[in-house]
Amino acid sequence: MIQNRLESVRAHMRLQGLDQLIVTQPQAIYYLTGLWCNPMDRLDALVVTQDKCRLLCYVLAVIEPDDCEVTVYSDTGVTVPMLSSLLEDGVTGVDGYFHSRFLLPLTQLRPGLTLKVSTCVEDARMIKTDEEIQLLRTASEVTDDVFADAFGKLREGMTELELGAVFSDSFMAHGVGRFAGDPMVCFGAGSAEPHHEPGNAKLKAGDAVCVDTGKRIGGYYSDMTRTVFFREVSEEQRKVYNIVLEANMAALEIIKPGVLMSDIHEAACKVIRDAGYMDFYPHRTSHGIGIDFHEEPYDVVGRPLPVQPGMCFSVEPGIYLPGRFGVRIEDLVVVTKDGYSLLNHAPKELTVVG
Amino acid sequence: MIQNRLESVRAHMRLQGLDQLIVTQPQAIYYLTGLWCNPMDRLDALVVTQDKCRLLCYVLAVIEPDDCEVTVYSDTGVTVPMLSSLLEDGVTGVDGYFHSRFLLPLTQLRPGLTLKVSTCVEDARMIKTDEEIQLLRTASEVTDDVFADAFGKLREGMTELELGAVFSDSFMAHGVGRFAGDPMVCFGAGSAEPHHEPGNAKLKAGDAVCVDTGKRIGGYYSDMTRTVFFREVSEEQRKVYNIVLEANMAALEIIKPGVLMSDIHEAACKVIRDAGYMDFYPHRTSHGIGIDFHEEPYDVVGRPLPVQPGMCFSVEPGIYLPGRFGVRIEDLVVVTKDGYSLLNHAPKELTVVG
Repeated sequence: MIQNRLESVRAHMRLQGLDQLIVTQPQAIYYLTGLWCNPMDRLDALVVTQDKCRLLCYVLAVIEPDDCEVTVYSDTGVTVPMLSSLLEDGVTGVDGYFHSRFLLPLTQLRPGLTLKVSTCVEDARMIKTDEEIQLLRTASEVTDDVFADAFGKLREGMTELELGAVFSDSFMAHGVGRFAGDPMVCFGAGSAEPHHEPGNAKLKAGDAVCVDTGKRIGGYYSDMTRTVFFREVSEEQRKVYNIVLEANMAALEIIKPGVLMSDIHEAACKVIRDAGYMDFYPHRTSHGIGIDFHEEPYDVVGRPLPVQPGMCFSVEPGIYLPGRFGVRIEDLVVVTKDGYSLLNHAPKELTVVG
Repeated sequence: MIQNRLESVRAHMRLQGLDQLIVTQPQAIYYLTGLWCNPMDRLDALVVTQDKCRLLCYVLAVIEPDDCEVTVYSDTGVTVPMLSSLLEDGVTGVDGYFHSRFLLPLTQLRPGLTLKVSTCVEDARMIKTDEEIQLLRTASEVTDDVFADAFGKLREGMTELELGAVFSDSFMAHGVGRFAGDPMVCFGAGSAEPHHEPGNAKLKAGDAVCVDTGKRIGGYYSDMTRTVFFREVSEEQRKVYNIVLEANMAALEIIKPGVLMSDIHEAACKVIRDAGYMDFYPHRTSHGIGIDFHEEPYDVVGRPLPVQPGMCFSVEPGIYLPGRFGVRIEDLVVVTKDGYSLLNHAPKELTVVG
């Protein structure tokens, strides 16, 4: 599996005319080695050429991938010279996550090196294998169960943080061992902020309850948003909910190979625009998902990116009425030969809980 | 407060001959504005000159600092040209966290710009004000209480993840609203890994229980490690514990203005080396702390960095015996006019729990 991934990255390198590639993002190193590094404030870097792999690795969390020459360093401030010693001359790709505190000193130490940002690993990661799709499905199935479990525990007066803990505990009860990825729990007016920070707001009748969460399970992320209403729902909440649901379904409906990511966004926007709420939909409809919570393919306005079988991404339109309430409905899909398949299956019809 | 910080950064800019400074790290933007941005996979950037501040900010989480011209963008792929339009010509500092996917395109778009890595903000942040020190003290006091509370709940057969949840719940009971910063809980052989990933190992008599955790409270982090023993302690565990405790105390003892960070490390190493365990102490003794969990001043071998009043950092020697057990004892200090003051106060004498 790892060997296939390396071959895919090397093919992209040849297409892009790269002699070598510096990979620094831990998720990308995991993709190419099957092992997690943990450089924290230091630098771990995998250098890939057509015939070998070399890894620069901080001493506290040494990983030893197969067929890879590993150079270990400690806190001695010679990271960049050590990285330089692993590099040959030539056209050198760097991933998009290489930090300036290492990158700029490297350009000074090796002025002859031609450096360019490379998406070789992102390009390879964008198309998931059957095995990866299965891992993504499993992560989403666990998340379906956790939402059902946690929404069954809504109680008047509980805080956003307390509901967040219910989600975390439920993930733990499902054997999910990574804590990271805190649930974004929003009650009432908080749901009108697309990136709300959960706090001590208390749940009350008539609140929209919007929860956006996912976990890395078996190396691959889930990510789902559902919005329900606590005890009662106003006419306007019902109307907005159904517009967002229609936008979500309209976007899903057109997904098949060859359609542009921006077409999917436009399908969602059209529904929201026609209903007169476009001023309240400020974000993109989709982001890719896999080893990372957000990764390619991103929905970027003006970039003509056609979807291909094996791509996995979110579809998550929303409407946010400042100071009042918001609704977002997010599903994950995998693109198939002639359409798409949903990775998550939690119900989407308007639900009043409690 | 913010104005003083900006003046301090501008003084560093003048010393370093910078016409402008690009700040991209959210923690640094918080330091200079008092507001948290949340760019996720996009770019937020604060451009500081001697007479103004400009902010490039992603639409989903717009912040509006005082006396700052804000330019908002959405998912349209024109981030780098927009950043460029905020820049004047001249010598341009960039912080150490600027990602290559924005930095390299900027160098192509603006070949006349002289870019260099700048530590202006790190240099300013390294010296804490009285107000910041008080926030760090409060964070550490909460953490003292949480450790006392959670260590009182050790039970045979509980897993590392379950103890992690006890810590998280205790922080929440203390009103700490940010979930992020998962406790590193290590039982038995897991404690022999300095960067252990908590899992389903079950607590049993004779285990070393090493917990390293901290939270951002009021904008500033705590960070503490304590190692206790469950029900019984072997002679070797007792011996190793007391060596690490002695190393921790020896390092603390020499802290005062003018001492080098590397002297503090050496004071800890000397104790461990004299006891014959130096092969089992692979990491630095100190890292700075503040708005970030790890920040300057770092203990870097070979860098002669003298400590100054107002610096806050960890002192955390450890000994790790692979496959068996490990001990780490971590305190936080603030450097005073003639010595140091501890920020945390949890007991350090050898403790057998349960």
